[in-house]
Amino acid sequence: MADVNHLGGMRTVWWQQDEHRAAVCMIDQSLLPGEVVILTLVHEQEVADAITTLKVRGAPAIGVAAAFGMALAISRLLSERGDTLTTAQAEEHLRRTGELLRSTRPTGVNLAWAVERMLRRARQAMGEGGSPSELARVMQEEAQAITDEDFEACLRMGEFGATLIADGDTLLTHCNAGSLATAGWGTALAPMYVAHRAGKKLHIFVDETRPVLQGARLTAWELQQEGIPLTLITDSMAAHFMRHGGIKGVFVGADRIAANGDVANKIGTYSVAVLAHAHHIPFYVVAPRSTIDLSLSSGEQIPIEQRNPDEVTSIRGIATAPAGVHAANPAFDVTPCSYVTAIVTEAGFARPPYEQSLRALCADYHVDGRADA
Amino acid sequence: MADVNHLGGMRTVWWQQDEHRAAVCMIDQSLLPGEVVILTLVHEQEVADAITTLKVRGAPAIGVAAAFGMALAISRLLSERGDTLTTAQAEEHLRRTGELLRSTRPTGVNLAWAVERMLRRARQAMGEGGSPSELARVMQEEAQAITDEDFEACLRMGEFGATLIADGDTLLTHCNAGSLATAGWGTALAPMYVAHRAGKKLHIFVDETRPVLQGARLTAWELQQEGIPLTLITDSMAAHFMRHGGIKGVFVGADRIAANGDVANKIGTYSVAVLAHAHHIPFYVVAPRSTIDLSLSSGEQIPIEQRNPDEVTSIRGIATAPAGVHAANPAFDVTPCSYVTAIVTEAGFARPPYEQSLRALCADYHVDGRADA
Repeated sequence: MADVNHLGGMRTVWWQQDEHRAAVCMIDQSLLPGEVVILTLVHEQEVADAITTLKVRGAPAIGVAAAFGMALAISRLLSERGDTLTTAQAEEHLRRTGELLRSTRPTGVNLAWAVERMLRRARQAMGEGGSPSELARVMQEEAQAITDEDFEACLRMGEFGATLIADGDTLLTHCNAGSLATAGWGTALAPMYVAHRAGKKLHIFVDETRPVLQGARLTAWELQQEGIPLTLITDSMAAHFMRHGGIKGVFVGADRIAANGDVANKIGTYSVAVLAHAHHIPFYVVAPRSTIDLSLSSGEQIPIEQRNPDEVTSIRGIATAPAGVHAANPAFDVTPCSYVTAIVTEAGFARPPYEQSLRALCADYHVDGRADA
Repeated sequence: MADVNHLGGMRTVWWQQDEHRAAVCMIDQSLLPGEVVILTLVHEQEVADAITTLKVRGAPAIGVAAAFGMALAISRLLSERGDTLTTAQAEEHLRRTGELLRSTRPTGVNLAWAVERMLRRARQAMGEGGSPSELARVMQEEAQAITDEDFEACLRMGEFGATLIADGDTLLTHCNAGSLATAGWGTALAPMYVAHRAGKKLHIFVDETRPVLQGARLTAWELQQEGIPLTLITDSMAAHFMRHGGIKGVFVGADRIAANGDVANKIGTYSVAVLAHAHHIPFYVVAPRSTIDLSLSSGEQIPIEQRNPDEVTSIRGIATAPAGVHAANPAFDVTPCSYVTAIVTEAGFARPPYEQSLRALCADYHVDGRADA
């Protein structure tokens, strides 16, 4: 397994610094697969906007973007104010930036986790008497650490998950939980990449994943780049192909996992889980431990983001419904733990009962992990 | 219940004749809801093309269009050849037109049923020594009879189906099984129209129904015209709203129903049926007896039309997936009878076991019905 992903060697999000300024760079995922455009963001507000408008999406990638956004905030302020910047001002600016970034998207917990971790590291550095310029350096290092850990976590999820995949398997996935959703090989797609590179023949059914079409636009593109055979389907076809298409397993990512194993993920995931259950197909959730929120006893407590109904009544700017029609647009749903065959993390598998298995998996998770909250 | 539908007084398909020529007219459903364009088709090949390209769709409406297409074929030939047209030529031309029309779409049985009925009527007229011009008149009358019967059947399905709907109910439907899919008030939507006009408060969740978006484009438009409150959702949201949206029943149409009660309908119907079952929500199929095919013992024998994958990889002409991606596009799926709570026909309800109940419902069906085959 090479240590670069397959996006032409690019990461989804990265830090760029020259003598003049720091920037957070990312692939603009809202334009894929038509165009591959790299954004160079020089203000934390731009990072927040990029998250809100889905230029970067996928719970782990959002966490990484937010971490770099925090680092950018302090670097930018330092370059503006220079030696006049006080530690108190730096701290206050980080706090406000954290609030800004956390307010962008409520469902995925990796975002809040990354912001909290950055703030904790900042307080530690300031407690040790660090200057604002030292703080900026520490913030950049911490954001890079989050990125590198996510990359490593993807590799390990891929290796664990690949043990669930046999040569010749046909699998199904929903949304995009691949390289574009993380700083590495992805979550749900990582096992497929590992299995494929180990020589296993695979065929992947890809739900297009309305309304924002992450499956059609992003997952199909990633699998195509990697040379894994796929069949793109509308979400409404999943049941038909579970009945007739020989699907052996479903792999999806997660935006937040409650202590009982309930999983919030892209809208439509719950549908796929119920359908998999009805067809006796195992349903696997692949996510790093930063996605697990032990502070919530069940998925009922996970806030579900309601997005603009225009995403439903139009597709890529073209109206698909009569003017004035009422539409709903919950961005996520919650799959009850009873539908989840196993949760694959970078530390191994959790299986039912999840109250015990998730807590055990997170027991040795480092103190910066949300799982310790 | 007024005896006109709500499409501004128009029917979906109708016959137009002046002193110069006959024509089959229809609303171009591929352009709705953006534009309301009336097509005037003067050649049976145009009718076949309109069916193939979904300018007219919905099993009963396709049957009506095909019947008028048969009438048009003989009228057109007669106006071209005049008195030189022989009965043998007329018969041969009708046979070929029947083959042409039947070849357009394989899944819905109403098309084949209507063509067979028209051919039978033609043979009868010719057996009675009718001239080609008498044949043309008889064909037009028979097509009109099919239309009028469908209109009446819609009313009766609406009345039977409305008894399943309580004041205040929230319901869900998939695809379009309304006025646009029939010559009258629709199949699955007719009970909603009847209930609404009887003063019952309703709220309808409408699946957008990818890939061709009949729900978003047609059902949302019809319900809007009728003033019935609706919420448009992506197909992937149905499960979420079955769990959280208080949905009391699912109503769908059908393209063909096998003798055992298995139902072929728009792709995604099977998904909705499995999800309804998992949420203990009744799943009703509404269809006239011309949709029942007692010659097939189960749904496994129903041919499933495979349409152009471009419908999946693009939406209204805009690419949604990377170039060259493989996509599947079965236009229909089969819902096993075990998921069907009841089938509502113009002659009343069929309930499990369907082998008995469907046969009983069709026992008094007139000899032109496919159900007697």
